[in-house]
Amino acid sequence: MDIATGGIPITILNQHDASKLDLHPGDRIKIFKGRRMETADINIAESEKAVPKGGIGLFEEIIDSLKVKEGKSVRIVPARRPRSIQFIRKKLDGGELTKKEIDQIVWDIVHNKLDDSELAFFVAACYTNIMSSKETVLLTKAMAREGAMLKFPKPVIDKHCVGGVAGNRTTMLIVPIVAAAGLTMPKTSSRSITSPAGTADTMEVLANVCLPIGKIKKIVRKHKACIVWGGAMNLAPADDKIIKVERPLRIDAESQLLASILAKKTSVNASHVLIDIPTSKEAKVTSIRRAERLKKDFVGIGKKLGMKIKVIITDGSRPIGNGIGPALEARDVLWILKRDPRRPLDLESKGVMMAGMLLGMAGLKNGLKRAKEILDKGLALKKMQDIIKAQGGNPKINPNKIKIGRFQFTRKAAKNGVIKDVDNRNTSKIARLAGAPDDKGAGIYFYKHEGQRVKKGESLFTIYAHNKAKLDYVIEHLKQMPVVKVK
Amino acid sequence: MDIATGGIPITILNQHDASKLDLHPGDRIKIFKGRRMETADINIAESEKAVPKGGIGLFEEIIDSLKVKEGKSVRIVPARRPRSIQFIRKKLDGGELTKKEIDQIVWDIVHNKLDDSELAFFVAACYTNIMSSKETVLLTKAMAREGAMLKFPKPVIDKHCVGGVAGNRTTMLIVPIVAAAGLTMPKTSSRSITSPAGTADTMEVLANVCLPIGKIKKIVRKHKACIVWGGAMNLAPADDKIIKVERPLRIDAESQLLASILAKKTSVNASHVLIDIPTSKEAKVTSIRRAERLKKDFVGIGKKLGMKIKVIITDGSRPIGNGIGPALEARDVLWILKRDPRRPLDLESKGVMMAGMLLGMAGLKNGLKRAKEILDKGLALKKMQDIIKAQGGNPKINPNKIKIGRFQFTRKAAKNGVIKDVDNRNTSKIARLAGAPDDKGAGIYFYKHEGQRVKKGESLFTIYAHNKAKLDYVIEHLKQMPVVKVK
Repeated sequence: MDIATGGIPITILNQHDASKLDLHPGDRIKIFKGRRMETADINIAESEKAVPKGGIGLFEEIIDSLKVKEGKSVRIVPARRPRSIQFIRKKLDGGELTKKEIDQIVWDIVHNKLDDSELAFFVAACYTNIMSSKETVLLTKAMAREGAMLKFPKPVIDKHCVGGVAGNRTTMLIVPIVAAAGLTMPKTSSRSITSPAGTADTMEVLANVCLPIGKIKKIVRKHKACIVWGGAMNLAPADDKIIKVERPLRIDAESQLLASILAKKTSVNASHVLIDIPTSKEAKVTSIRRAERLKKDFVGIGKKLGMKIKVIITDGSRPIGNGIGPALEARDVLWILKRDPRRPLDLESKGVMMAGMLLGMAGLKNGLKRAKEILDKGLALKKMQDIIKAQGGNPKINPNKIKIGRFQFTRKAAKNGVIKDVDNRNTSKIARLAGAPDDKGAGIYFYKHEGQRVKKGESLFTIYAHNKAKLDYVIEHLKQMPVVKVK
Repeated sequence: MDIATGGIPITILNQHDASKLDLHPGDRIKIFKGRRMETADINIAESEKAVPKGGIGLFEEIIDSLKVKEGKSVRIVPARRPRSIQFIRKKLDGGELTKKEIDQIVWDIVHNKLDDSELAFFVAACYTNIMSSKETVLLTKAMAREGAMLKFPKPVIDKHCVGGVAGNRTTMLIVPIVAAAGLTMPKTSSRSITSPAGTADTMEVLANVCLPIGKIKKIVRKHKACIVWGGAMNLAPADDKIIKVERPLRIDAESQLLASILAKKTSVNASHVLIDIPTSKEAKVTSIRRAERLKKDFVGIGKKLGMKIKVIITDGSRPIGNGIGPALEARDVLWILKRDPRRPLDLESKGVMMAGMLLGMAGLKNGLKRAKEILDKGLALKKMQDIIKAQGGNPKINPNKIKIGRFQFTRKAAKNGVIKDVDNRNTSKIARLAGAPDDKGAGIYFYKHEGQRVKKGESLFTIYAHNKAKLDYVIEHLKQMPVVKVK
């Protein structure tokens, strides 16, 4: 059966065989083909049509991993419940998990031994009985160990943004600055989940971000840096599975948030990490109290992992940069690197500040000054062009030629006044409705920022889309989702 | 697609359509056909072979409920996450749920709006942040309301055993005694999950236990009682779904245990309920402390539900009765009703005692004495025969003619001594390995009970099976799973 499931694979038996074997929907079996083995949950086919007696319906992933062909036979046996279940139960009962227990849980997650409900119990257990920092360190290491590893000689620089702020593309400034300063920064970034663009989506406008690990190593050895999509690299794979069950409830267990971020830093052997926690009621972290607690935890866990971690708590109440959406953000970044007068200064100063901190953490004197120079002298641009070229993009790309959605709508100020409340959430929603991030050229471009004066009739922002239907749809929703207020 | 899934239905889209609609494995959609609507999770078909572009693969339950035929078209829209998710999150965060919130959760469970992981979060939330008795009452009422209801005029007698003890077939004695005393007792029982037989499995040896509700009502109106399988009646259906996700972790949240039992009592409008909590390290409830806490909770919640509840904490360390397994237990019961000298006196006295208590609770004088008389005078037998006949069985059935597995193995005492440790767990395991409950005639029959003296060579017990392979298998396992020790 040519079908790919979500979590744990499904296999289908004829109900006649199933009842003979006393197997029921949801039961788990092991399927053997020669030396290969896979675990799967069972569905029941109620007719010969779907799966004949003596037959078994295997889905894509199992067919691939067992290398079995139609008409061949496989051996099945009822599977014991995975060992880690008792450890999940232990955590649910408030116990502290040992290394062996955490390793087993992570191994079972990565190898699809746990189904979604069992995984949910684990997440809930860690959420209600918060993990000790000892447990979190063990979880972090286990998650990293179960995935791909990039072992570059330290110092290895990395940064992370807890997210939730539209625009905020600091990574694409920090990486070239830090690398131009001679430091190693193999950056693996994520795609957007709920935002209009992730760094990977934006970098993809300029270059290929899905590269085999071997290629990435070559690039980093040569240019000190890369900007690629981590999702293609199987770093800490347990994380994606955990996130999948967390999403509907929008919970993230503190310990898992920490572990999932730091596991990926561990995978790239990071030694100096700067973490940006945008905070506001419209960002992912909504209270300073929580931000401060996270900061403390990051630093503490980092120490135990042999990582030097600095955390900055930044304003998460408004978008950063002028462009929102992959192409518009890529254009902003290139304008900054090229020192174009149209560049967004808020994004520039945040990026330079963070790059400066990282240079300082790595022991370079006058980090901030160095970072500024590297940018002003065009060394960052040069480095970015090397990276783009190495990742199969066009290093000479002209930011003004980047394709932007051709269907546009510009909102003008209805009166003189001052810009108030550029709404971060609504900005993201509108940009996504316009088509971002899948439509690379879709999004919003701001002409004015919070606090600036506008005259009646002046342009506030333009919405870009790839087709008229989407644009009309967005315009319609602008009423309920105001992006900018003039007061 | 002619396939039945476990929990929430699955539907399959061609990957081309899925990516166009930005739908991913695990996402949820609503499927409309005319006025009918169903919710389903998505899998992705990676080839035209499985599901062609523009096509959709629907599983059994959806095809049935939408009444859609191959070649017809349906309308699909992405489904919002069910409303109750925020309430589950609230409970997970330690909040107290309101009536509206609990009703919504139960409604979503019953209508397949929650997938297994969301359900697991709910169970985990109630397990770690134990529900208040107020919440438990609301949960109980909601669970009952969302299922079938049998509204008989009160007083309505009911009983429940928390389970875990092999043999313990008191229900089949209590029901005919109580009904013969003129009280209403519409008993819905369960099948075994981990034991060698549930009451429904045992009653099924004598009569049909899967009856339409209309028929059940008729029977109870005429004979005051029935003994049927609750599983066929859709009583408190949310419960089965909760149990399914609980099983792998073997947790039962106190509040859910209470709610699931009392919801079924509410469904039959019970007014007087006797609950048996067998307690021992080999039973389901392993400590007196927990038993006492459950007792307190049952009585308290019962009061709030307008139910008079009595709880007895009994010895759960050894099997009760001589026969273990559906046919052997049914034979024991009939022997007791027929006052046959071979009847097991431990089961008889427990059944009579409980029946007596129930008569007393319902306001009859000298309950215990009445119960004994009803049994001795053959009124209980007469009533049982009426019930068997009404449920389509043979009322004149001769217990000695009940089919018992013809492959037998008898264990004899190796020395003179006294019977010690009749192991409840091993008894269940051995009886199940022998084929119980699916093989009705399989199981164990004890000739001697704990504390009795035996001479060398005397029979201790006989194992019965339907085929030689199973019997040999069991004999092999007897070494590691001793059932009886002689000291």
